[in-house]
Amino acid sequence: MPADQPPHTTATRPGGRSARVRADVVAATLAEVAEKPYEQLTVETVATRAGVHKATLYRRWGGMDGLIADALASSADQAWPIPDTGTLDEDLRLLAREVQETFTDPELRTTPTALISAALRSDLGAAALNTFFTARHRQAAAVADRAVERGELSAGIDGAELVRAATAPLYHRLFITGEPLDDRAAERAAAAALLAARAGLFDTAD
Amino acid sequence: MPADQPPHTTATRPGGRSARVRADVVAATLAEVAEKPYEQLTVETVATRAGVHKATLYRRWGGMDGLIADALASSADQAWPIPDTGTLDEDLRLLAREVQETFTDPELRTTPTALISAALRSDLGAAALNTFFTARHRQAAAVADRAVERGELSAGIDGAELVRAATAPLYHRLFITGEPLDDRAAERAAAAALLAARAGLFDTAD
Repeated sequence: MPADQPPHTTATRPGGRSARVRADVVAATLAEVAEKPYEQLTVETVATRAGVHKATLYRRWGGMDGLIADALASSADQAWPIPDTGTLDEDLRLLAREVQETFTDPELRTTPTALISAALRSDLGAAALNTFFTARHRQAAAVADRAVERGELSAGIDGAELVRAATAPLYHRLFITGEPLDDRAAERAAAAALLAARAGLFDTAD
Repeated sequence: MPADQPPHTTATRPGGRSARVRADVVAATLAEVAEKPYEQLTVETVATRAGVHKATLYRRWGGMDGLIADALASSADQAWPIPDTGTLDEDLRLLAREVQETFTDPELRTTPTALISAALRSDLGAAALNTFFTARHRQAAAVADRAVERGELSAGIDGAELVRAATAPLYHRLFITGEPLDDRAAERAAAAALLAARAGLFDTAD
């Protein structure tokens, strides 16, 4: 939402009209982003698809990049299943494999790939990506917390940095170098992150 | 160069007119990319800056995204100093620190950051990024070759994968998550890559 539209000026309670409008607009944005190249995206077609007047979209979201940023924020708000298998090794493998499967499965990959690519196109989108990944890394750091509780890692570890290490090589292939991402790359990323964590490389205390 | 413009149709010998035109056009493209947001880039202003007729630019490069892709290809062609300090540990640290310094120093960062960001905007640019990073990884794999010669690593290692591991976390912060990139992050990436290499994670033989 733009800064000049604070929550108390519209009904934003869960299930309220404003929340339903947002859900419809986010769904329409995701559908458009998945179907069209960035250059062909317009507020008008999102409005038509969502059944919302385009003036409302311009007022609340500012424009197409604001819609893309909010679709990403909406994804970040959703609960994300964090592996809890009982070992850090397996939890990290599942985290990496989940990224790999999401972005390589022909059925699953379309929307998240298009959403991240579209967000990389604007400053608003880049800020939303930063918020999105910061939230994801913080949530997934639970695998490190549990490993500390089990005595697998020492208490000073930066869990977000561990998660970042296990997944960065995958996003790097997908969105920067365009190199293929196979099971092997995911396994390697998880195994390398585990080794580094055990060696104390992610400890916060120097 | 577009596929319909094979080298033998124009004078492409080093120092020839065609090579000088390309050098002028690449320099003008880099200057424009560094100064303006992607949306404001035009073939016309590159043409004016390079002192080349815009019809020539459209014919040889197709458009702005072709110019950006060729500027990246031109960068990939340039020799890149690969560290050779005598230890793999220090070579990897220097590789990672070079990326970190290039993209965080206020003087150095502008052009390469703008060039990669611009390339991420189009399919042509993405293909050029893939070629660019494939070449970089292959060149820098010399640090692994030398480590094998010194007996620091076993002969089966995939040197490009080692280089990728030492640098992926940095590009991930810079171009995807927008998280800060400090000395510590560069040191961690190099140290984690070294641990993984020593543990045999990058060995090509299964």
